[in-house]
Amino acid sequence: MDKYLIPFKKALENITGTDIPDNEVRKVISDEEILEYFPNDYFLRMGENSRSIGLITEGLFRIFHTDTEGNEYTKNFKTDGQFICSMSALLLIAPSRLNIQSLEYSKVFCINYDNILQLADQSFSWQHILRKIAENEYLEKEKRESDFLYYDSKDRYLNFIKENPDWDMRIQQRFIASYLGIAPETLSRIRSSRTITKITI
Amino acid sequence: MDKYLIPFKKALENITGTDIPDNEVRKVISDEEILEYFPNDYFLRMGENSRSIGLITEGLFRIFHTDTEGNEYTKNFKTDGQFICSMSALLLIAPSRLNIQSLEYSKVFCINYDNILQLADQSFSWQHILRKIAENEYLEKEKRESDFLYYDSKDRYLNFIKENPDWDMRIQQRFIASYLGIAPETLSRIRSSRTITKITI
Repeated sequence: MDKYLIPFKKALENITGTDIPDNEVRKVISDEEILEYFPNDYFLRMGENSRSIGLITEGLFRIFHTDTEGNEYTKNFKTDGQFICSMSALLLIAPSRLNIQSLEYSKVFCINYDNILQLADQSFSWQHILRKIAENEYLEKEKRESDFLYYDSKDRYLNFIKENPDWDMRIQQRFIASYLGIAPETLSRIRSSRTITKITI
Repeated sequence: MDKYLIPFKKALENITGTDIPDNEVRKVISDEEILEYFPNDYFLRMGENSRSIGLITEGLFRIFHTDTEGNEYTKNFKTDGQFICSMSALLLIAPSRLNIQSLEYSKVFCINYDNILQLADQSFSWQHILRKIAENEYLEKEKRESDFLYYDSKDRYLNFIKENPDWDMRIQQRFIASYLGIAPETLSRIRSSRTITKITI
């Protein structure tokens, strides 16, 4: 599993903003597994119980809610170097309220959250890592919430492609529209107006 | 400041779900201050920099965003025994993106977040407390998000008064409507239909 030491350590360091010693990382990656997903496979479905955190080493996933009438609401996309899990399901030991589905052929390095919890009981470093993970997830949610208040749909789209230049080609437009909270026709209009502007300039 | 030891300790224990020794709590409350707020006073305004966490010892506050056109979006209400702060402002050392305004005469015990951070650098207990605070804030946000997907406006209102029976009388209806994401007229209709049902039974 040492092959995954570096990417796992790097992903954690990206979140915590601090160096994490190799031996701390090794404590949780010893017995873990790599799973592969074909497009449309689920890492996690609403209602399922899962104790896994996945580190994407290749590919792309969509995270979405489904309401009581079956409508889907895309909450996020995650790609290599990023973690996927239902944080509330892990924290509350409850069934997941969200779906995590692969959009491309993907590989995920799975870690057992309960092993991390057990380790954190005695470890300052792992308390700190779990704290930073929670703070980051919170900030991500708050940012998304305020983006909806302070940016119109065009600016939300422009920010989206600025932050993730290749996702516009890799992700179906209806999923991007759902993520941005706009109708697919509106997104299509925004995209074509952007192309015209580019040509004019 | 020992007068505030017990309420502060209790509020932290409510969040962490574990006992916190008095000496840990004493480390952050020694030089702190009590502030009082009259109705409509601000604990924090959008755009302000603040490094304070407030523990409400009496009263009620409304937390809200204001969009670029001045429309207000009520995000939460907090009452005695609960904390108020802009978590993203504290974490990112940035101006607040939200407003926190008192709805009643209120008293707040203010703690300096940077003192807690400094303490957490060396303390397992404070890492754990900060982790639990972040996890709780995250869960609160996620719960609110999924309540909007899985409950209609009537059920959201019924849950609201079930969880906080006295808030329906203490908080202006337009703020409750804003919090529940419904028009004031709709809330008024829901409330009167509820009254009629009660009488009929």
